[in-house]
Amino acid sequence: MSVFTTVTPEQLAAWLRNYSLGTLVKLEGIAAGIENTNYFVTTTQGRYVLTLFEKLQAHELPFYMNLMTHLARHGIPSPQPVADLSDGVLNELNGKPAAILTCVPGADLKDVDANHCETIGALLARMHLAGQSYTMRMQNPRGPHWWQAALPQVTPFLDEHASAMLKAEVNFQVNCIQPELPRGAIHADLFRDNVLWDSERVGGVIDFYFACTDTFLYDVAITVNDWCFTPAPALDNVRAKALLTAYHSVRPFTAAEHACWPQMLRAAALRFWLSRLYDFHLPRPGALVHAKDPAYFQRMLEQYIARAVELRPMLA
Amino acid sequence: MSVFTTVTPEQLAAWLRNYSLGTLVKLEGIAAGIENTNYFVTTTQGRYVLTLFEKLQAHELPFYMNLMTHLARHGIPSPQPVADLSDGVLNELNGKPAAILTCVPGADLKDVDANHCETIGALLARMHLAGQSYTMRMQNPRGPHWWQAALPQVTPFLDEHASAMLKAEVNFQVNCIQPELPRGAIHADLFRDNVLWDSERVGGVIDFYFACTDTFLYDVAITVNDWCFTPAPALDNVRAKALLTAYHSVRPFTAAEHACWPQMLRAAALRFWLSRLYDFHLPRPGALVHAKDPAYFQRMLEQYIARAVELRPMLA
Repeated sequence: MSVFTTVTPEQLAAWLRNYSLGTLVKLEGIAAGIENTNYFVTTTQGRYVLTLFEKLQAHELPFYMNLMTHLARHGIPSPQPVADLSDGVLNELNGKPAAILTCVPGADLKDVDANHCETIGALLARMHLAGQSYTMRMQNPRGPHWWQAALPQVTPFLDEHASAMLKAEVNFQVNCIQPELPRGAIHADLFRDNVLWDSERVGGVIDFYFACTDTFLYDVAITVNDWCFTPAPALDNVRAKALLTAYHSVRPFTAAEHACWPQMLRAAALRFWLSRLYDFHLPRPGALVHAKDPAYFQRMLEQYIARAVELRPMLA
Repeated sequence: MSVFTTVTPEQLAAWLRNYSLGTLVKLEGIAAGIENTNYFVTTTQGRYVLTLFEKLQAHELPFYMNLMTHLARHGIPSPQPVADLSDGVLNELNGKPAAILTCVPGADLKDVDANHCETIGALLARMHLAGQSYTMRMQNPRGPHWWQAALPQVTPFLDEHASAMLKAEVNFQVNCIQPELPRGAIHADLFRDNVLWDSERVGGVIDFYFACTDTFLYDVAITVNDWCFTPAPALDNVRAKALLTAYHSVRPFTAAEHACWPQMLRAAALRFWLSRLYDFHLPRPGALVHAKDPAYFQRMLEQYIARAVELRPMLA
């Protein structure tokens, strides 16, 4: 569960007096989420999500808050931070940085088909285009610098094969000479559980707390690696084609992006293999969550390296 | 009907390429509204309202657009202008200034009871508080200056009693010495048909195109004059009490506001009597709408002047 910091209805009712959201009707802890404390908040006006930031610092939060505001303003269905009477969206509650955001409608999907992938591909491209006028910048906290820092911390826990493979892949990626690729604000974690569906339409994209400034193609690769793979993992070509064609119809891929695609799929698989290894072998003190299986992304990466999946034609 | 400027699906689809709203699914003209051309627009992302401004000029629009954005950001259920890929919310379409806004849910009420008035009173106070951090200013275009300008234009159409009463009331109002009253952004037209209800909750406040910077109490008086009167018109004390008590619980009335309340109710009745007379006797060329009955607000004003309704205790 993910209520790390308890908030009572009395505390929240007092805190809400600094907002124009009406009065508190109901307060319920949210079980999902591993980084922050989240509550559903119902007021006389509507339903919101209260987030207390457990790990991120107050100075890091404006990038995320302003990005969500910016994207929502452009029609991307993301939560919108609500401003208080002083026109700020960040406050403190029970000693933690806290914000209240609109509650986007919908639920995550259990079964993904090609139509969903088509919707996600177009939505991701729209997010990238909408984000191009966003002026704040944030270095990717899980980029090549982090890979190199995490590598020696996790290899002691790995067998020889995995350790050699991981070292070789980090080495391959950090030494890649990449052409200039289109870049801007990316979600960087657009997994199935971060997209809520309101019947066949996306009601909301959530969990922007890995968002950063990086190449759009990397975001596409992260998204394909989740939405277009079976649990084996095995690439579902029909889904991948649907996602990439829809993306391309909104923001056409450049020649440089075509050339980098196979490497980018590997980079996206590496990033989650490495972070899952890290969370599995080096859990944060007090972490209450079962770490996810790192081997899934290892197997995906093995397929990419062996070219067991047809990579380059996917973008065509 | 209120489609003064026709937009074809082909024109709109091309225009929408400058936004991140997905592709056009459906376009329907909206019959309501007397000032602008409005269409419901359905895209693959959701439902929006396209507005082409027929009377307001492009330079006047930022006040309204930014006010709606500001209020929505504070949790007030108002339409939100959607930004285009250049991050602007105003464009041109078929030669008119145009914007696309989120579509707020709900429908206007046929029967108003005290519970609705309580909700509206609290909402209006929340709007006033939320608007206090709004920095743009707009003089009331239907304030005392306009009353004085419109007076000689409409009196030729009136009988002697009405003409004398109107002159006396304008004279009374412009010579009132008013203490400093709390002021800020006001809606100035919060009639029943501008509030959409999503069951018992307000889904949206619409039609901000009379919004301006003026005293909050004037906005309260306009609202009471619509929500708390029977068609006679006769004041419904239960509804008025509910609205004012709820407002007061969110933003307490000051002593100066108590003192000015009777005069403000008269000012609010005068403003709509005068504007309805103007629209009735001096319709704009090409106006397609039946002007509303001016006599309703004349009768209301007569009651206020005669103190046939108990005014001052209403705020207590």
